[in-house]
Amino acid sequence: MVTINKKFKRASIYSSSGQKRADKIAYQIIEILENLGVEVYVTESLSDIEVNKKYVKKDNYIIKNTDILISIGGDGSLLSSARKYGNHGIPVLGINLGNLGFLTDIKPEELTNSLIDVFNGKYEDEERFFIESIIHDSKNKNIALNELVIHSGSVAKLIEYELSIDKKFVFRQKADGLIISSPTGSTAYSLSGGGPIIHPDVRAMSIVPMFPHSLSSSPLVINQNCKIKIEIIEGDDPLLSLDSHNSIPLKKGDIVEVKKADKLLNLIHPIGHDYYSACRDKLGWSMNIS
Amino acid sequence: MVTINKKFKRASIYSSSGQKRADKIAYQIIEILENLGVEVYVTESLSDIEVNKKYVKKDNYIIKNTDILISIGGDGSLLSSARKYGNHGIPVLGINLGNLGFLTDIKPEELTNSLIDVFNGKYEDEERFFIESIIHDSKNKNIALNELVIHSGSVAKLIEYELSIDKKFVFRQKADGLIISSPTGSTAYSLSGGGPIIHPDVRAMSIVPMFPHSLSSSPLVINQNCKIKIEIIEGDDPLLSLDSHNSIPLKKGDIVEVKKADKLLNLIHPIGHDYYSACRDKLGWSMNIS
Amino acid sequence: MVTINKKFKRASIYSSSGQKRADKIAYQIIEILENLGVEVYVTESLSDIEVNKKYVKKDNYIIKNTDILISIGGDGSLLSSARKYGNHGIPVLGINLGNLGFLTDIKPEELTNSLIDVFNGKYEDEERFFIESIIHDSKNKNIALNELVIHSGSVAKLIEYELSIDKKFVFRQKADGLIISSPTGSTAYSLSGGGPIIHPDVRAMSIVPMFPHSLSSSPLVINQNCKIKIEIIEGDDPLLSLDSHNSIPLKKGDIVEVKKADKLLNLIHPIGHDYYSACRDKLGWSMNIS
Amino acid sequence: MVTINKKFKRASIYSSSGQKRADKIAYQIIEILENLGVEVYVTESLSDIEVNKKYVKKDNYIIKNTDILISIGGDGSLLSSARKYGNHGIPVLGINLGNLGFLTDIKPEELTNSLIDVFNGKYEDEERFFIESIIHDSKNKNIALNELVIHSGSVAKLIEYELSIDKKFVFRQKADGLIISSPTGSTAYSLSGGGPIIHPDVRAMSIVPMFPHSLSSSPLVINQNCKIKIEIIEGDDPLLSLDSHNSIPLKKGDIVEVKKADKLLNLIHPIGHDYYSACRDKLGWSMNIS
Repeated sequence: MVTINKKFKRASIYSSSGQKRADKIAYQIIEILENLGVEVYVTESLSDIEVNKKYVKKDNYIIKNTDILISIGGDGSLLSSARKYGNHGIPVLGINLGNLGFLTDIKPEELTNSLIDVFNGKYEDEERFFIESIIHDSKNKNIALNELVIHSGSVAKLIEYELSIDKKFVFRQKADGLIISSPTGSTAYSLSGGGPIIHPDVRAMSIVPMFPHSLSSSPLVINQNCKIKIEIIEGDDPLLSLDSHNSIPLKKGDIVEVKKADKLLNLIHPIGHDYYSACRDKLGWSMNIS
Repeated sequence: MVTINKKFKRASIYSSSGQKRADKIAYQIIEILENLGVEVYVTESLSDIEVNKKYVKKDNYIIKNTDILISIGGDGSLLSSARKYGNHGIPVLGINLGNLGFLTDIKPEELTNSLIDVFNGKYEDEERFFIESIIHDSKNKNIALNELVIHSGSVAKLIEYELSIDKKFVFRQKADGLIISSPTGSTAYSLSGGGPIIHPDVRAMSIVPMFPHSLSSSPLVINQNCKIKIEIIEGDDPLLSLDSHNSIPLKKGDIVEVKKADKLLNLIHPIGHDYYSACRDKLGWSMNIS
Repeated sequence: MVTINKKFKRASIYSSSGQKRADKIAYQIIEILENLGVEVYVTESLSDIEVNKKYVKKDNYIIKNTDILISIGGDGSLLSSARKYGNHGIPVLGINLGNLGFLTDIKPEELTNSLIDVFNGKYEDEERFFIESIIHDSKNKNIALNELVIHSGSVAKLIEYELSIDKKFVFRQKADGLIISSPTGSTAYSLSGGGPIIHPDVRAMSIVPMFPHSLSSSPLVINQNCKIKIEIIEGDDPLLSLDSHNSIPLKKGDIVEVKKADKLLNLIHPIGHDYYSACRDKLGWSMNIS
Repeated sequence: MVTINKKFKRASIYSSSGQKRADKIAYQIIEILENLGVEVYVTESLSDIEVNKKYVKKDNYIIKNTDILISIGGDGSLLSSARKYGNHGIPVLGINLGNLGFLTDIKPEELTNSLIDVFNGKYEDEERFFIESIIHDSKNKNIALNELVIHSGSVAKLIEYELSIDKKFVFRQKADGLIISSPTGSTAYSLSGGGPIIHPDVRAMSIVPMFPHSLSSSPLVINQNCKIKIEIIEGDDPLLSLDSHNSIPLKKGDIVEVKKADKLLNLIHPIGHDYYSACRDKLGWSMNIS
């Protein structure tokens, strides 16, 4: 028994991949969706597309006139569309180019059938949260879907910081930096740094030190509603990085406040989406030592 | 501003430590509590105590006539009292002998002041969940507060098992075994095996493979409401261990179902209890490499 | 340019696999070798073989009258033949059934060509060392090719021991146990426990704690000529395990002395043997997260 | 029984610490050594010292006219003096300011006694090797005592490289970078990245991936005489860092060759120097979880 969800009437297409193949798939999507009677726009990121320019709309227009955003590319494209459009309440669906992603689970060869299903209301939707950070005395909020990294700006260079959670002192630590990850980001950079895989259903964030100057450090999983505060104690030119995408300079004495953002990402999956299957495929869980 | 909680009228004292010092502290507790007008019993585990035998009661009586159980000893004593009495809804308070514990946070030298506060309603209470397991086709449920371990029964001997979560296949794995831990257990055996520290506020369980036969294994954190199923595929005499306390023999083909138990442990702390402070003390978070 | 090595005149065949397929391959080997004019024996482990019983010889005879031992099976069969025959100076060659092993690198389908090459002197030989242990006040020496494990005998049960190297105190540690591994064993159990891969050319042993009760423990690599001493400080029924094969009971106060054995294993490989290729195949080094 | 070693007649003093306290200790050393009839120079790094300028000599002069170099500061100062003077065959002795170091094991309070002993020939000397790297098509060799890091230049940014050892392909990997460490460096950055501790007696180097894009990566220990080759396959502005000190820009296609340098560092210790004692002190090996 499959529940029929809300049907999407207006779709926009996005890609940050810069690949020729993304254009081709965008063109296919336009054709399929127009046949379904869906109104289709294309973001400026795809404005080189060889179809009629009438599809291309500015982001302002897209944000106000779109029921679903279709992101073409890998997890990187999806992260970027999530921050740009998903953050304004627009559900996001990922079409992957090439390898299966954790976030993009429609393969090009299943495009027609998957889109017909999704636009007939046969889909699963899932909420993912953004991590929001604000640097003290600044007005700018920044968001990340995967992770936020505070680091020395260079490899093999220490910074020292003090971590508090919900106004309680946790530790003062010397390390190359610190990764604060959402469950969504737990299969990305955090995992390379020894962090645990956190299922998207878990209401938590993880804190993983990078090359800590103490062997007694360990990944820490905290409630998603915790207010995290990091004060930079020592460090020449530390940086705050969001989704390995943009970096904001920090300085000694800066206080970075990190928490779950209020707005959620609505991530659309085809029916039958299986988190653990993506883990098996992408993490090689079937590989044995001998 | 401190909320005044429910006042406890009847207290029971327990210890599994077998130390002379536990008797001495039990005697002190009786004196302090009787001065406060509290009715005091002592479990049979302490029946060698050199006070009047009238205090000693059988567990049946204790369970029906106790508002709070005071456990003397280390985290081991507390785990045991949690399974025996806490599991029947009796709040548990831990007095540690010697080193500070994660669960027992009243030191002997603070005994009088702490007990006066707690019995005047000045305390913090916190809910911790038990993990419940049932072996297929058996009627027996077993509970653990820290962790449940399914393993080969010997060191350096593999078993093979298949893990499903909420009826979805997760992986088939060869390893010495698997640790399923609550947040309470995340600072115990699971941590030695490379699992993350999970704050008690996080509604989650962790699954940590032991000496997995594949390098691509990683600790996994899932929602506390997940239903876990482990099927033993290969293994000579595997065991199910609960809180490193009792072990139940398993055999090839057995299916172990694991989930959060319905009943919760009500853990009593003195006002000002600080989880991260316990982490710093017990995990050496202040130690730097140089 | 390939050096022509010493030619083997008398070969013996061994297997601990118990598989029907091992018999079939033994039969093929006899045929190939007799055609090459090599005298062939078969150990009693293969005495059910459906060929003439004249091939079967007792171990005493085998040890005195064999120039090369051919082990059929996986790395387990090879470990066992190394301890039984290789330890008496007989070179060992491994034929794997099924998956490529770290030690057995001839596949059944390459049997004829590989054997012809090897018995014509076209092979590479490599020295691997055994680890020898002696329990204080006992006369019995035990050897292992992969690793020696001192452990509590049960999972999730601590022992406490004191480690000295070359008469210098190293540490006192509480843990489930300790793995002392040769480079040969570094890709086996030690690797599952977080130990490094040590190339067979490195003259070293590694010491890897198992579920240590302290986060500050780390794998330690020491010179192969070090004399290691472990004293059991606490532990109910600890065990000394060798190559996950046989276990010797220990008791509180026992002192185990561990060192590189004097005798070396002479391991025969086909020309072109590639250690890193075996690592890639068996450890999944080509698997990326995405 | 202590062997009396070669006596040093001419000593030079170096520090990169920039601390006032280094000057004070330099002054003390001059006084002690002149009393012992030793000729003393001071490197230009200490030229602000408030003693007679006659002590200050240019590096050229120091290198030709010094029997022992005394480095004041932490391990950083010693690394720097090792590369500058130790690399020219001058033995190096480390005086630490503050905390005990792995390389600097004379405390200021033991200065007089330790120097009297050392200059009377009562000392232990130990050889440590440098790691040498050369970027293909360049003439410049660079050396490091601790480690060499090839990395993306930014945190959370991948490079792709191909590793060969002794002309054998090992793996192609995506990661933030790669640490190649000597035993001396194994207790420094490599350890923070999960590498093993390698005793200085082991003739080996370790290769530790940084945030590898594959879970199946593992630290690798190879013979010190191996010739390592890393080819940069992908990466915008990768860097080669030596002892976290100087960084050399790399580009896509660059090939970096890494090997043990021919010259060795002669490191001087007071009699009774104990490597494992330094490990216990600096790595917190005595800290238990509870």
